[in-house]
Amino acid sequence: MKAISILGSTGSIGCNTLKVVEFLGDFRVVALGAGKNVEKLAEQISRFRPELVAVENETCAENLLREIHKTNTKAPKIEIGEKGLIAVATHEVAETVVSATVGAIGFVPTLRALEAGKRVALANKETLVMAGELMTKAARENKAEILPVDSEHNALHQCLRGESKKEVKRLILTASGGPFRTKSKQEIENATRQQALNHPTWNMGDKVTIDSATLMNKGLEVIEARWLFDFSADEISVVVHPQSVVHSLVEMVDGSLIAQLGVTDMKHAIQYALTFPKRQPNCLPPLDFAKISQLTFEEPDSEKFSCLALAYRALKIGGTMPATLNAANEIAVGAFLENKIRLSDIPKIIEGVMDEHQSQSVSSLEIVLETNASARKQAIMKLENLEKTASANLR
Amino acid sequence: MKAISILGSTGSIGCNTLKVVEFLGDFRVVALGAGKNVEKLAEQISRFRPELVAVENETCAENLLREIHKTNTKAPKIEIGEKGLIAVATHEVAETVVSATVGAIGFVPTLRALEAGKRVALANKETLVMAGELMTKAARENKAEILPVDSEHNALHQCLRGESKKEVKRLILTASGGPFRTKSKQEIENATRQQALNHPTWNMGDKVTIDSATLMNKGLEVIEARWLFDFSADEISVVVHPQSVVHSLVEMVDGSLIAQLGVTDMKHAIQYALTFPKRQPNCLPPLDFAKISQLTFEEPDSEKFSCLALAYRALKIGGTMPATLNAANEIAVGAFLENKIRLSDIPKIIEGVMDEHQSQSVSSLEIVLETNASARKQAIMKLENLEKTASANLR
Repeated sequence: MKAISILGSTGSIGCNTLKVVEFLGDFRVVALGAGKNVEKLAEQISRFRPELVAVENETCAENLLREIHKTNTKAPKIEIGEKGLIAVATHEVAETVVSATVGAIGFVPTLRALEAGKRVALANKETLVMAGELMTKAARENKAEILPVDSEHNALHQCLRGESKKEVKRLILTASGGPFRTKSKQEIENATRQQALNHPTWNMGDKVTIDSATLMNKGLEVIEARWLFDFSADEISVVVHPQSVVHSLVEMVDGSLIAQLGVTDMKHAIQYALTFPKRQPNCLPPLDFAKISQLTFEEPDSEKFSCLALAYRALKIGGTMPATLNAANEIAVGAFLENKIRLSDIPKIIEGVMDEHQSQSVSSLEIVLETNASARKQAIMKLENLEKTASANLR
Repeated sequence: MKAISILGSTGSIGCNTLKVVEFLGDFRVVALGAGKNVEKLAEQISRFRPELVAVENETCAENLLREIHKTNTKAPKIEIGEKGLIAVATHEVAETVVSATVGAIGFVPTLRALEAGKRVALANKETLVMAGELMTKAARENKAEILPVDSEHNALHQCLRGESKKEVKRLILTASGGPFRTKSKQEIENATRQQALNHPTWNMGDKVTIDSATLMNKGLEVIEARWLFDFSADEISVVVHPQSVVHSLVEMVDGSLIAQLGVTDMKHAIQYALTFPKRQPNCLPPLDFAKISQLTFEEPDSEKFSCLALAYRALKIGGTMPATLNAANEIAVGAFLENKIRLSDIPKIIEGVMDEHQSQSVSSLEIVLETNASARKQAIMKLENLEKTASANLR
């Protein structure tokens, strides 16, 4: 039995990880880190009996105890906040840590897991976006592995098996294009929260779904790919592929393209990361060729989706700029989800924050955390200015 | 400089191999085997200065000398017939032998190359179809490698890099579907030589193009795949993919599909086989995603294309049955190319010969050669019967 910890166990990746673990049968869940969803966490505790769990704060811990009581389960050790997530990420027995929290909260715990030499199955893309240099350095120095769990990087990981890095010409990330691929610029500007959350192919959490609608998701993946596979911005391309059947491709120096195709279910990538280098049968139906019948590819429209260009710009500037982009995006997406701003305000806020940021080298954890905090502050200020302007316009 | 011999140098694969060799610059051509095309061979001799060449017979040798004389080139050693091809295939200095003759003629020379421990870049698919067991045994015992040069198996070879055989669920060969994919059964029956030679995506020799029109090409490839990669008939599928962009795929036990995509130019696979395990830049334009825009997939129509089913039947029976299928097919395709029979007569002749053949184990070279000879005789008899019936019907 291999021992596993999950950061973000009640989210979409976390729940799917538990389904995979249940199907595989040879993993033992030793620690779960969650946020506020104590009902779901109590269910998971009753089913998987971890030794340790983490929740967001004291109130959550009290509520969790009440929920656990209802299920007649012995309560595990409960820890709190970031300290709690770090305890989950570094649980002594855990060999594999699934890092699946959304946003910057997973950053420090994931770094600690790498420092502890764990295999990290990484679904939290902000981690590498914010501090790819620190993360990959920690992995190298502590012989920790990073296995990508999102479908595109997982596909790239599969395509690169048996290939020599110096014979790779470029990585090609596929993008579904999101719900607004065929919409006009004006339709996108006026898109509602509901429309943006209506993703055509993938069923994911809210933040990621909005990132997918703006193509920021793909921009963050470009930055992530830079760190996971050590390629420059010029060697990473994006192609829009609405069917999401081809999960990504690698172009070799001889012009050969190696692609990974599969069903659009995160459980595939999760299982791959857990069982690598082995592949095992899974609980998913096979991809039916007769059913796919048609695959299409097109260039991304960088004018309609300026977030992608912002991400490339941040990656090329390097240093703390990607962390700035990421922090500003988190604030802007949060505001959009609360109906405070329009979808087209998201890139405006990010660009404004980036314009005022002086990038510096990512030489320490503190710099990344400071950058994150200050970019968030800046983004909130931009947000308030937008709201003031909007209400002034209404008057 | 790596030394290379080519069997079938004046054919389509042979000529493309020489283009690749010229582009790469680090190969030396030591021997060339051809048939009757002495003008082309003389050109190749003048350009590549091999030490040894082989032609079909004495008359060809005399004509070749006359052609060489015109080019003011010193004549290489000239050998004749199968003995000549064997000399080319086993040339002492050659490390790699490209086996690119069409039909059964390449069989013995290719076996000799493997016995001599050469790397064989194999484009002659009849070799494995007729005697896969002997060929792969010779390769194993003499530490010779077989690198597939046709685009589908080459693609499979690329997809299998870094994968474990026991984790492969099935191989999926793509088929363009040929010129008659969308035609009715009746249209196919009445197809002219010209229509059958008009292949939609690949530019190949006549025999292979007709095999492609009947899908026998794919049937032979299924048998070839069985020997190259050691999978059973049930683990090898065919999917029709008219754009010929995805050259083949491998389905893994976890449902993941690994595909190889590229331009439809044989030079890619040839270079891969010559430089493996290295990949090097080649002379081909890269595959442009914006241009492909759409890829489609469909099940092959086994009623319209009965040759594919015959090949699966031969593979499942095993022993000398695939050699019988292959020999009967060569005779039938030859007759079609001479306008002696209709396209729909090809599977009829093959099925007739197979029905009368008692399969036996492929335990020696002699058995394969006898099977080949007797199946050819049988096929010729079927052919003559068909012609008699046809002329009786005309009277």
